[in-house]
Amino acid sequence: MPDIAKVNAQKKPAEPSGIDAAILRWQQELPAGCVCLDADVREQRGRTTFAPTVKIPAVLRPVETAQVQKIMAIASEFGVPVYPISQGRNWGYGSAAPIHAESVVLDLSRMNRILHVDEELAYAVIEPGVTQLQLYEELQKRGGNLWPDATGAGPDASIVGNYLDRGFGHTPLSDHQNQFAGIEIVLADGETLRTGYAALGAERIGDIARGGPGAGIDNLLIQGNFAIVTRMAVWLYPRPESCVAFALRVHEEKLLPRVIEQMRRLRFHNVFNGSPHLANDYRVLGINARFPYESADPTKGLTKLQREELQKEPGVAPWTLLAGIYGPAAQVRANTRTAKKAFRGLGKQIIVTEKLLRTGDFVLSLLPLPLRRTRNDLASAS
Amino acid sequence: MPDIAKVNAQKKPAEPSGIDAAILRWQQELPAGCVCLDADVREQRGRTTFAPTVKIPAVLRPVETAQVQKIMAIASEFGVPVYPISQGRNWGYGSAAPIHAESVVLDLSRMNRILHVDEELAYAVIEPGVTQLQLYEELQKRGGNLWPDATGAGPDASIVGNYLDRGFGHTPLSDHQNQFAGIEIVLADGETLRTGYAALGAERIGDIARGGPGAGIDNLLIQGNFAIVTRMAVWLYPRPESCVAFALRVHEEKLLPRVIEQMRRLRFHNVFNGSPHLANDYRVLGINARFPYESADPTKGLTKLQREELQKEPGVAPWTLLAGIYGPAAQVRANTRTAKKAFRGLGKQIIVTEKLLRTGDFVLSLLPLPLRRTRNDLASAS
Repeated sequence: MPDIAKVNAQKKPAEPSGIDAAILRWQQELPAGCVCLDADVREQRGRTTFAPTVKIPAVLRPVETAQVQKIMAIASEFGVPVYPISQGRNWGYGSAAPIHAESVVLDLSRMNRILHVDEELAYAVIEPGVTQLQLYEELQKRGGNLWPDATGAGPDASIVGNYLDRGFGHTPLSDHQNQFAGIEIVLADGETLRTGYAALGAERIGDIARGGPGAGIDNLLIQGNFAIVTRMAVWLYPRPESCVAFALRVHEEKLLPRVIEQMRRLRFHNVFNGSPHLANDYRVLGINARFPYESADPTKGLTKLQREELQKEPGVAPWTLLAGIYGPAAQVRANTRTAKKAFRGLGKQIIVTEKLLRTGDFVLSLLPLPLRRTRNDLASAS
Repeated sequence: MPDIAKVNAQKKPAEPSGIDAAILRWQQELPAGCVCLDADVREQRGRTTFAPTVKIPAVLRPVETAQVQKIMAIASEFGVPVYPISQGRNWGYGSAAPIHAESVVLDLSRMNRILHVDEELAYAVIEPGVTQLQLYEELQKRGGNLWPDATGAGPDASIVGNYLDRGFGHTPLSDHQNQFAGIEIVLADGETLRTGYAALGAERIGDIARGGPGAGIDNLLIQGNFAIVTRMAVWLYPRPESCVAFALRVHEEKLLPRVIEQMRRLRFHNVFNGSPHLANDYRVLGINARFPYESADPTKGLTKLQREELQKEPGVAPWTLLAGIYGPAAQVRANTRTAKKAFRGLGKQIIVTEKLLRTGDFVLSLLPLPLRRTRNDLASAS
């Protein structure tokens, strides 16, 4: 099979005539709305936050796998590089613009069906356009017994896009590269392929188990463009009886090695069974507030003094640890006690239970001042 | 690069002249002892438990990666199929004999160095010939703070062989395909390759983290023969404060669906944080006793009546669940209570603590009668 990586890696982009011919064929063989030549859309899809805009000849918007197959077969025939994106909104994971000029963007956002939710075995089969918000709402509608492992990339981010980009979340299913199975892929020549057990006809087993006989090829698709994933069984977390968010604000930087040591120990032993996150002050401020344009120069960043000032705001510390403890109530109680003991003397501990989370005031009190001010402004303005 | 899979898949085995020429070159370029043409060894390496013996022209026994490289370069040059094994003793995982006649066996058992044990980050870097017993003894010598995730394949089984065969064990690191990193591989043409972070020069990170930038290729080596693994960082389990083996004997087959439901729930929520094992009577008898040759026909297996008789032996039930609960003492206590409650009324529960495990009598009482008899016979005979 020809492969997308090779096509993309070609030094010389395809001749314009090749692209024009391919566009013509796509227009002939795909329904209206699938081939977008609109200048605004092309410009928007080629925009990045830092580098020069990439020129894109067309944005292709299939609604089903068969159309992806057709698109790829024609692209291969005319040697046109294709750059697939799911939603293009995994903020923090890099730009959605193609890395090579003259690449056609394959925008999978219209393939956004939730094909199946398995309440018993805790997974959802989704298409690449399904967003975090969309799956969350679907699961809530069904009673909320299953949790998606959400990332900080935002509600409009594609789940498949995040999983394929080695994303991470907060629950015990946080290491996304290993928390899915049952993929269907379209190869560069337009053929589809099922992997693992599904390839043997055992689709439900294929949805819940990586592997199957022989070499595992699923990880080739992680940050790899050998094929296009059009279906994925994303594993979900059955709502635990209890959960606690454990936060630690470390005010003395010299204590950090001991914090990391304890963090590692608790992670090894499933006390922190979610993925612990360790953030410096910049990271926390970046989550909770906008850059203070009125008092600092954005081209230079904060001065040492300004940074130290902001560190004094409630809710900000040089280092902040955040970790989830999920499970049956008795297990969570035991683990919370273990965590409290482990970090004694290493910083300010904040234990957030589900009950506390439901009281907005408490959450607000955790936020640094700048954001609280913004919230208050908004509140008084409304 | 030429690949082993393709070479192996050739319809026609290499011409005898090719093999003879390759053997001559191996003899010329490798130290004495590396090329074994001994008829007994070749016969033994080609033996299987069920199919006709495979004829093997030579057994190659390198002691270091450079020799593996030389072997593969020459094999590629002469088109000789190569079948790598580590120790050939992963009982239960299939035969160690080549699948194609005329394959040369690459026996890696002399590459058995433990290159590094990292007490802080809990892993060991090993060569393919390292056995379960060898690593266990090394870790015990160092104080026993780290546990390998042992499998039932026996003390002489290669760890790398087991991990590459999608093996499984009992601790929280039981899913072996995902519990290693830092591999070094020799490709079919004799080139070596490091994957993930190690490929970027960050060896220690590469030893503890799968992934790194770009596509993940490590899983291609699982039950795949695209390359030969000569180094692996196997993750270890830091000795937990407490551990409990939870066993359940299910005497009423109709309760099995409810048992499985609870097992799944406890697994999802890290109550069973080791891999639960569910075995039928045959499996338990197969572990604990030999086939009763004196009373049953081995070509026909047990009769229904004989099977029902054996099910009545203490320690045997139609179904037996065995699961590990590991962690800090308080967590293990909470999880054991949860497990007890979950399986109430579903069978006979047996809780084995570490303390109980140390008393041999208790373990003996768990064994089915035939084996106890054998043990008693042995005891009285000695």
